[in-house]
Amino acid sequence: MPKIVNHEKRKEEIAKATWRVISKQGMKGATVRNIAKEVGMSLGALRYYFSTHEKLLEFAMNLVQEQVRRRIEKIITVPMPPKKKLVTMLMEIIPYNETTRAEMEVWLEFTVHFRNSGHPEKRKDGIREFIVSIFDYLETNGFLKKGRDKDFEIERLYALIDGLAIHAIMEPKRLHVNRVKEVLYQHFDEICHFPK
Amino acid sequence: MPKIVNHEKRKEEIAKATWRVISKQGMKGATVRNIAKEVGMSLGALRYYFSTHEKLLEFAMNLVQEQVRRRIEKIITVPMPPKKKLVTMLMEIIPYNETTRAEMEVWLEFTVHFRNSGHPEKRKDGIREFIVSIFDYLETNGFLKKGRDKDFEIERLYALIDGLAIHAIMEPKRLHVNRVKEVLYQHFDEICHFPK
Repeated sequence: MPKIVNHEKRKEEIAKATWRVISKQGMKGATVRNIAKEVGMSLGALRYYFSTHEKLLEFAMNLVQEQVRRRIEKIITVPMPPKKKLVTMLMEIIPYNETTRAEMEVWLEFTVHFRNSGHPEKRKDGIREFIVSIFDYLETNGFLKKGRDKDFEIERLYALIDGLAIHAIMEPKRLHVNRVKEVLYQHFDEICHFPK
Repeated sequence: MPKIVNHEKRKEEIAKATWRVISKQGMKGATVRNIAKEVGMSLGALRYYFSTHEKLLEFAMNLVQEQVRRRIEKIITVPMPPKKKLVTMLMEIIPYNETTRAEMEVWLEFTVHFRNSGHPEKRKDGIREFIVSIFDYLETNGFLKKGRDKDFEIERLYALIDGLAIHAIMEPKRLHVNRVKEVLYQHFDEICHFPK
């Protein structure tokens, strides 16, 4: 009797195997053959879930974003002072543990891959939308200091986060996790006032 | 009679051919064979200049940094108000014309390559040192506002620049060159006061 397999769950397993292959061998190792081997599937079975290599890569890339989103949503529900909650959520994007490091590595590979294939816009990570929602929250709750230019602050924090993420992965020894947190706390202190 | 060739100049030509190959085909296309073909040299001649593939890649990467440094040094000598000079220099790092775009593409490929080869520290771009020198200049000239934390400002501007550079190459339509300049001007206005 054939096993009843949750289709979406199987696709996620394939995507996660793709991340592992990319993490170990870079994008050039992420062939359909290697991915099938990693997940323990035949090429035919893999094609049943993803008809093309590009579709598989896009799904694997989007799942990175989805996973970050799920973790951030969990943090939202935990009671915490607002500033701490913001920094804790943003730290889910910055590569400082095994999970976020692997995500960032895969993200960098996808960035280069989709740029090379002439579709840089496919590399969507949802981070800008998340930053926008942070400023909506800050503004609605009156935490953003008077006279602050919200569009500028969105652009600045967005660049700051991605810059810190790049530096964290390239210079993990110099840029310690606590230093990154400090920079974020100091940045928020400058643009916001939070209730004590 | 053999032509007298400037050794360093020839190495630069090879490095620039390497950039063109990477720009067209990504790092996976940057084989010794393809680079030799691009520069119009035999494999033997190429090996005379670079004994290994890694040494060639490192030289090509360092030349990106060297080229940016030369352009920035030229700007330093041009008479301009301080704030405009700072932003003009920083814009040499951000991919907004053919040259800086090609440099950034190559930079991204090198970043991923050296990370995958287990030597992320080889990806040195000298940008942090440049940012440090900017803040030394701001402080010495009394342009940095009182009470500003210099170490924090260095870390923040460094991340801001690399984040803007990444976004400029991934979302050129959304993030217009003038918007990037505005963000930098606004950031400097916040942390500095310049003479009128």
